[in-house]
Amino acid sequence: MHKVERLLINYKTLEEFKRFKEYGLQELSMLEELEGNIIENDSDSPFYGIYFGEKLVARMSLYKVDKKFDQYFSPQQDYLELWKLEVLPDYQREGYGKSLVEFAKTFKLPIKTNPRVKSSDFWSRMGFEAVKYDMERDKGENPLLWSPEAATRSSESA
Amino acid sequence: MHKVERLLINYKTLEEFKRFKEYGLQELSMLEELEGNIIENDSDSPFYGIYFGEKLVARMSLYKVDKKFDQYFSPQQDYLELWKLEVLPDYQREGYGKSLVEFAKTFKLPIKTNPRVKSSDFWSRMGFEAVKYDMERDKGENPLLWSPEAATRSSESA
Repeated sequence: MHKVERLLINYKTLEEFKRFKEYGLQELSMLEELEGNIIENDSDSPFYGIYFGEKLVARMSLYKVDKKFDQYFSPQQDYLELWKLEVLPDYQREGYGKSLVEFAKTFKLPIKTNPRVKSSDFWSRMGFEAVKYDMERDKGENPLLWSPEAATRSSESA
Repeated sequence: MHKVERLLINYKTLEEFKRFKEYGLQELSMLEELEGNIIENDSDSPFYGIYFGEKLVARMSLYKVDKKFDQYFSPQQDYLELWKLEVLPDYQREGYGKSLVEFAKTFKLPIKTNPRVKSSDFWSRMGFEAVKYDMERDKGENPLLWSPEAATRSSESA
């Protein structure tokens, strides 16, 4: 397993983020806040990543959603939303993505993600399952869920 | 301008959807419901599209969100969520995407969309503007908004 680190918001990290395809409003907002001294250099970010030497080669963002906003699990509970899981092209198929997801699971909370469609084999191997689609809730999303209880059940039956 | 049609859910439409990149849980769910007779053949869908001859070459999905769920506009109001706007590769740069967005605007409601990052020039030309990023609300999204009032203001000042 690779070492997963919480990423700090600084100019080096934000420069490394530009190599990832899913660079968007979130990253631009962090850059603006850093430039405007609204956040301090080396603040904690919602991102976790894996370095190969000095280079960030994989990352994901995690955010704990309060159970009062939970629309996915029953009964309602706190869960982690996971997004922007991405491994740089030259580093794929070496277990970086798996290491990040395994790290997310160590928080012992259910996890929801909305992956790109082509990654469904990966998520299935990670134990994530598709929800029953609900247009009002899901709109253009393809939500996948994992929960610690379901993981326990399936390893007991295996 | 191209003729925009509301798409009916039937096997022909669902087969045409497979040519689009953003084919996911929503389409699979419609197929299952049709196969299970849970919905009737030729039911209305949330999709609108443009045909070139007999072939569906562009589509989008629209859903009216009730103002009590509005987290984007102030004061809270009913708005349209627009997703899966997509034009088949051989038909791009011929105004199909623009025709769909112009059609969505005719409902005279504000519109929110979460486009793929590389399409930001297109959305800017369509008059959509980025929100101020809010992690709790937006997570991995890059929300863009358009509203009829803002469109009126900017044409008055032009």
